[in-house]
Amino acid sequence: MEKSYVVGIDIGGQSAKLGVVDARGNVLSQTVVKSNDTTDINVFIEHLCTAVEQIIKDAKLTKDQILGIGVGAPNANYYKGTIEHAVNLTFCGKDLVLPFADMVTKRIGLPVRLTNDVNAAAIGEMTYGATRGMKDFIVIALGTGVGSGIVVGGQLLYGHDGFAGELGHVTMVRENGRQCGCGKKGCLETYTSATGVARTAREMLEKTNKPSLLRNIPAASISSKDVAEAAQKGDALAKEIFEFTGNMLGAALADFIAFSAPEVIVLFGGLTKSGNLILDPVLKSMNENVMPIWKNKVKVVFSQLKESDAAILGASALAWELRD
Amino acid sequence: MEKSYVVGIDIGGQSAKLGVVDARGNVLSQTVVKSNDTTDINVFIEHLCTAVEQIIKDAKLTKDQILGIGVGAPNANYYKGTIEHAVNLTFCGKDLVLPFADMVTKRIGLPVRLTNDVNAAAIGEMTYGATRGMKDFIVIALGTGVGSGIVVGGQLLYGHDGFAGELGHVTMVRENGRQCGCGKKGCLETYTSATGVARTAREMLEKTNKPSLLRNIPAASISSKDVAEAAQKGDALAKEIFEFTGNMLGAALADFIAFSAPEVIVLFGGLTKSGNLILDPVLKSMNENVMPIWKNKVKVVFSQLKESDAAILGASALAWELRD
Repeated sequence: MEKSYVVGIDIGGQSAKLGVVDARGNVLSQTVVKSNDTTDINVFIEHLCTAVEQIIKDAKLTKDQILGIGVGAPNANYYKGTIEHAVNLTFCGKDLVLPFADMVTKRIGLPVRLTNDVNAAAIGEMTYGATRGMKDFIVIALGTGVGSGIVVGGQLLYGHDGFAGELGHVTMVRENGRQCGCGKKGCLETYTSATGVARTAREMLEKTNKPSLLRNIPAASISSKDVAEAAQKGDALAKEIFEFTGNMLGAALADFIAFSAPEVIVLFGGLTKSGNLILDPVLKSMNENVMPIWKNKVKVVFSQLKESDAAILGASALAWELRD
Repeated sequence: MEKSYVVGIDIGGQSAKLGVVDARGNVLSQTVVKSNDTTDINVFIEHLCTAVEQIIKDAKLTKDQILGIGVGAPNANYYKGTIEHAVNLTFCGKDLVLPFADMVTKRIGLPVRLTNDVNAAAIGEMTYGATRGMKDFIVIALGTGVGSGIVVGGQLLYGHDGFAGELGHVTMVRENGRQCGCGKKGCLETYTSATGVARTAREMLEKTNKPSLLRNIPAASISSKDVAEAAQKGDALAKEIFEFTGNMLGAALADFIAFSAPEVIVLFGGLTKSGNLILDPVLKSMNENVMPIWKNKVKVVFSQLKESDAAILGASALAWELRD
């Protein structure tokens, strides 16, 4: 029987989204299972695989029409098929190394490819999205953290150990940089993630007396969404926060270009909802900081994956590799 | 006839070194031609190709035993076979784009592969040197400038336009950085090249009153070699200069690791003659600045190519690609 369908699973800290996908990127059926209701990996695998079997049925397909399963997860290692020391996953935690791909295969009888969530997004973008047909690009995910997926010569860059592409953790501020969750200081992520934007807002509100709509919100609960909404209403301080964030990100992108000379950089994740508020300063700063040979030559675009499906599509795209 | 030999040509601002090389990296014959005695590219091509024919004869070979010619040159584009805007080459200059590979092939009847000099070194290292059998590594050349060659998955990273791997031009100092020849400020190259070390020496001598052997040398003529010699004699200020340089380079390497997760970083070029003076602070700073997952995991080694042959070997290695 021809295997013309794949399953994509995106595992986050609260839930796992999964769907059956065809070769053109249509999600035929999908569902969600909780990922934070157990500390027992065997229980989670059972819940997950039961749901996989259900969505295959929902799509009016059988298992032998499924080429394989692609999984995007935090701290996932492509080479080993493991999820390692994932502090945000209750069934993993900081000490465990889970042979996740093997466990799923054993339970459900389908081959599994695993990679980190942003690598999955990069493959999704190349398969169905903004970079179809491109061989050299970088995807930067601006969410709770900052992740990246780097594609060179049409191949995802995994590096020697499978963990390449941690661009959220290059050092942008070398003195008195913000403490990062990774243990370092001054990482890009501490400034240009959604939480980084909220942190910048709190700092700017505290350091200045400038009027701002953001002063109506308790400081501790300000989110990047609040900052975007204030900026869209013309709030000067909120705009300044986006300029600061965009400047920092643009300077980082300039260095990334010196590394891999991408055709395009794709921005992905929650912060991209702020649109030109973030894109304009990013482009300005990137072109000011890049080597002259690349000035105004590298495009920066937002992800073109349909947002509600993006996570599933990205993960599913990984499973098409099983054709080779 | 079996084509078991290649020619390697390394083109620098003063001279081009060329040699005939066998599959094990033995240089069978070699010579040097001047590269700065003409502004006419046709004259240089004629000199160069006459010399190629001579060394083939010197090696007791004929042209039909030669697989091809590999060329390493500044501002060389692998995809297009061009040398572009090479200000340091009298026969090119900032305005010209020379179809160098085609010109050599037309004159001599052998296929030509061209890349920049540090990419050639990286291929040489992988073919004959410190990274034989490795698939993920970075070569950093610390010479008059700072160049790099990045290998991922066993392939040289060329990027979308063929110019990837300009790691000497990531920004290390974002405020009041040193002016770089590329037009930017604060580039790695302005601090960790041989000329960067000399510049640091002059700055430190001027800013402090610390005694130093370097004060016996006219400031304008201090070289990185002078600094290394003083440091080897125990000169405290000279040691401090190497620590500053190594700290900067190590911090940069930490960011490069976050990008491509290499197994090894190979240091190459004049500054490596200073041995542990540079290597010790590089390792310390790299491991302090890298993400915890890579702490003490990435090796930093010096090039293992025999120095007098390194440039020729690197370029020649490129020609073996023509077997495919």
